[in-house]
Amino acid sequence: MRFAVWAPHAERVDLAIRGRNLPMRRGEGGWFSVEDGDAAPGDRYGFRLDGAEPLPDPRSPSQPDGVHGLSEVVDHAAFAWTDQGWHGAPLSAAVIYELHTGTFTPEGSFDAVIPRLGALVDLGVTAIELMPVAEFPGARGWGYDGVDLYAPHHAYGGPAGLKRLVDAAHARGLAVILDVVYNHLGPDGNHLARFGPYFTEKYRTPWGAALNYDDAGSDEVRRFAIDNALMWLRDHHVDGLRLDAVHAILDGSAVHLLEQLAVEVEALQAELGRTLWVIAESDLNDPRLVRAREASGYGLDAQWSDDFHHALHAALTGERNGYYADFGPLSDVARALANVFVNDGRYSRFRRRRHGRPATGLPGDRFLGYLQNHDQVGNRAMGERSAALMSPGRLRIGAALVLAAPFVPLLFQGEEWAASSPFQYFTDHRDPALGRAVTEGRRREFAAFGWSAEEVPDPQDPSTFSRSRLDWSERDRPPHRDMLEWHRRLIALRREQAALSDARLERVSARADDAAGWLLLRRGPLSVLCNVSDGAVRVELGAAVPRQVLLASHEGVEVGGDGIALPPQSVVIVEDLPGATG
Amino acid sequence: MRFAVWAPHAERVDLAIRGRNLPMRRGEGGWFSVEDGDAAPGDRYGFRLDGAEPLPDPRSPSQPDGVHGLSEVVDHAAFAWTDQGWHGAPLSAAVIYELHTGTFTPEGSFDAVIPRLGALVDLGVTAIELMPVAEFPGARGWGYDGVDLYAPHHAYGGPAGLKRLVDAAHARGLAVILDVVYNHLGPDGNHLARFGPYFTEKYRTPWGAALNYDDAGSDEVRRFAIDNALMWLRDHHVDGLRLDAVHAILDGSAVHLLEQLAVEVEALQAELGRTLWVIAESDLNDPRLVRAREASGYGLDAQWSDDFHHALHAALTGERNGYYADFGPLSDVARALANVFVNDGRYSRFRRRRHGRPATGLPGDRFLGYLQNHDQVGNRAMGERSAALMSPGRLRIGAALVLAAPFVPLLFQGEEWAASSPFQYFTDHRDPALGRAVTEGRRREFAAFGWSAEEVPDPQDPSTFSRSRLDWSERDRPPHRDMLEWHRRLIALRREQAALSDARLERVSARADDAAGWLLLRRGPLSVLCNVSDGAVRVELGAAVPRQVLLASHEGVEVGGDGIALPPQSVVIVEDLPGATG
Repeated sequence: MRFAVWAPHAERVDLAIRGRNLPMRRGEGGWFSVEDGDAAPGDRYGFRLDGAEPLPDPRSPSQPDGVHGLSEVVDHAAFAWTDQGWHGAPLSAAVIYELHTGTFTPEGSFDAVIPRLGALVDLGVTAIELMPVAEFPGARGWGYDGVDLYAPHHAYGGPAGLKRLVDAAHARGLAVILDVVYNHLGPDGNHLARFGPYFTEKYRTPWGAALNYDDAGSDEVRRFAIDNALMWLRDHHVDGLRLDAVHAILDGSAVHLLEQLAVEVEALQAELGRTLWVIAESDLNDPRLVRAREASGYGLDAQWSDDFHHALHAALTGERNGYYADFGPLSDVARALANVFVNDGRYSRFRRRRHGRPATGLPGDRFLGYLQNHDQVGNRAMGERSAALMSPGRLRIGAALVLAAPFVPLLFQGEEWAASSPFQYFTDHRDPALGRAVTEGRRREFAAFGWSAEEVPDPQDPSTFSRSRLDWSERDRPPHRDMLEWHRRLIALRREQAALSDARLERVSARADDAAGWLLLRRGPLSVLCNVSDGAVRVELGAAVPRQVLLASHEGVEVGGDGIALPPQSVVIVEDLPGATG
Repeated sequence: MRFAVWAPHAERVDLAIRGRNLPMRRGEGGWFSVEDGDAAPGDRYGFRLDGAEPLPDPRSPSQPDGVHGLSEVVDHAAFAWTDQGWHGAPLSAAVIYELHTGTFTPEGSFDAVIPRLGALVDLGVTAIELMPVAEFPGARGWGYDGVDLYAPHHAYGGPAGLKRLVDAAHARGLAVILDVVYNHLGPDGNHLARFGPYFTEKYRTPWGAALNYDDAGSDEVRRFAIDNALMWLRDHHVDGLRLDAVHAILDGSAVHLLEQLAVEVEALQAELGRTLWVIAESDLNDPRLVRAREASGYGLDAQWSDDFHHALHAALTGERNGYYADFGPLSDVARALANVFVNDGRYSRFRRRRHGRPATGLPGDRFLGYLQNHDQVGNRAMGERSAALMSPGRLRIGAALVLAAPFVPLLFQGEEWAASSPFQYFTDHRDPALGRAVTEGRRREFAAFGWSAEEVPDPQDPSTFSRSRLDWSERDRPPHRDMLEWHRRLIALRREQAALSDARLERVSARADDAAGWLLLRRGPLSVLCNVSDGAVRVELGAAVPRQVLLASHEGVEVGGDGIALPPQSVVIVEDLPGATG
């Protein structure tokens, strides 16, 4: 067994294992290494820099005792994979389901997800996306404060648990996407700076020191991030990565880290013979991220489309606070459906500057569309889902637009049955001062929106976590069962109708009447007509062609002549019949 | 006369003029304005924010009393231009001459440059490039500490002086490039932060606070920079801009400031009917800057090519300290000649990381090549020119390679005659603490290279400035006269031989024998053969074709058969004769 660590500033490094200290040999570029023939999976180890106390391995594959414990030896090759027949799937056909391992099931573990996969397959989901699993402080958390980026969280079941889940998903034809955080490290248990120049003073992120991706010594820091990405894909058989908040990955290099990562993942895809996805969460509205590299883009597979979410959420809820200030009219939803970015260079009131540029020429499947995700739900003071913020009619409209949009749809756990549980912000910091700071920071953040300290759930309180757990029993009861059926039918329709998975945005048109409150999305021969208003509307569609209703949220839809009449807060999907012109 | 200022944080702004305070009216977006029918050119004015003391106009066109004085009313339309027939010239045909207004002549003014323009035309120069002229603290300085970015320095002759110089240059067929600094402001006399959010905490530059180009309120800060660029081109008839250190223009927007600037300058070019150039100094080795916008580049006209300089300087001087650590062998010069970037993704010892990416597909005239410039000379402890650091033979080799390279050549004032004066770092800070800090900072910087405090010239000492002044009298004396003639003949050859201005890099080949010390640059039918070594060399050129010598630095070159023999430290340019193969 070979142990290696990059510690360019250290004079001496020892491997601490089984009560012994093995001096490591300094090699090229600040790497130290040593062979230990006696080491076996399950052994705990650490690195002593210049005689100091043992620190966990920056690339630790497992932290059974948490972020402050020693690392555990893992033999990735020992796992008995059964997914030899799995070769991945195209992202353009995906329906993604985001879940948080800790709250998706009562048990909160990787293994507990497995029995639920069948329900997701029944729903029509093709990929699950796990919120970050890298070891973070404590047992409960969203995962964005991870510090051992190579170690699946011990409370979820560690590396073996994650592998069992991925293997089981593949057995059911489900891909697995992992949320990974390369823009900062959490505040507790982060020892990287003691090993080398992992951080830079050139930039600042909202969450702490910026990782050093372009300053002296950055080659190895870039490798640290990219090797991590490759590790999940190779050793854990993960199919795709969701890169958290890439706008905070600050890199002035001629080859941006994201481009290098996309290049290396493509190479791994060829090597493994499996389709791999790299998807970014980006606040930049910059098409460069997903543009092909031959056209000087970074060549990522896709990015999240927050403008579509914000436009949809603002139109359906009427909310205008925070970033929703930039949105509101239904015509912004139409704009997002046809052009992706609503802020495509226009002035953003929220940002107090112009923002973005047009996504001209890109297909819709370079973007993910959603009505909800962990951020949009959980970053509210009370963590309310859309179902708590809009009528069932509007909720159906939102689901229909997400699932008929030219984007790759993403659902957030429980969305399909309008789960009643909130998804609140929870932490489990063991450092009391840090715990208090998180509690008070959360209170301060929402005091600005008028919430009193008592109203804001305390992230550190275990009940905030348990309150956020899905209650699967409600899934089969009305009205949740009906909402589940609505999602199932929408997903089935998306799979059956080729026009709905055609990503060519030049074939998409969308228009809205803000005063009357309706929106019409056209995708080839299909029309998705939504009435958001509280009154009935009739919309003229132009030529009088025979049309059939494929799906309607309510009774009382009338299709006839050259138009459609819709009851309040309803949506219908109709098809122009073959031979008809229009 | 209308006065306007952007002061979004102010409750009240008054125009202070002729002893009076005129209240300004708040308009859209934080702009205040007022008409003053009595204002006349020459009047002094300032803006009082919320009743405070009058500050100079952030967009002051003239600061006759320096950075702490009031602004002066200027009527740009009043100048009697005589350059109606001037429409600019293509950058690809340019030979650029960088000069510092304060030291180019004994007088140190714009007007004093005019009588010298004839000498530059005689030399073959087609464009002069002025080091920054925007008002900076004191009377002497390089200009990179400017704070009134719209005001030509009063000590140089102010706006009227600059216009007379540009008009005179155009009359002689010379274009004028201006060095402009948009990455930071100088430390003294910078009042911008009192007017609005001109600076951001998101980033840090080596020279002070980063300008806010992508944070809240940044639209107007971007306008401040871009309007400044357009102002020089429109109101002062300047033909091109050299953007200082664009790697420190930190902007995460989907449309980078540089791209927006290039777009707007192109629009102005069409409006004015004059060819305009935007040239960047960049430390990024990123071809994106000069790549066409239709290929997702920023579309700048050109950028400085420091790798070519560093490779050439290191090969000719043997120096390896600082950034020269990345260079040395003649083969790096060959690589720069053929590929532009030497650090094209390879590891940089100086930066301690990989650097750059290949400039594949770009023509050579997107890059400027030079053996010297103000930075490379003046950022040395003693400000020595190349002539003080290498033999006359090697100096001739350097000049030949710059002027036969596929890049747009640039000379630094006095280089053409191997001027004996250094170009040292000089300042004239009136704030004693700041002056001491600059003196001590300079000493500290070079202590690391082994210079004692007494050896390093004091930037604040007026003799450092006067020592850096050109001595025109030496120009006509040997050996300076011979070096001048060498440059004149090289420039003439570049103009006469179409192969030398052919910017297609796929037609350039270069190879070197590091052990033997020779380099061969092929440009179509022309061969530039350099012997850097201290011994005679003979280089085989392949096929035996008839060749004629176009220019040789020394007697004793023998062209015959399939090779050329060169004496030590010499260079020859030969032409394959028509009909010959090879």
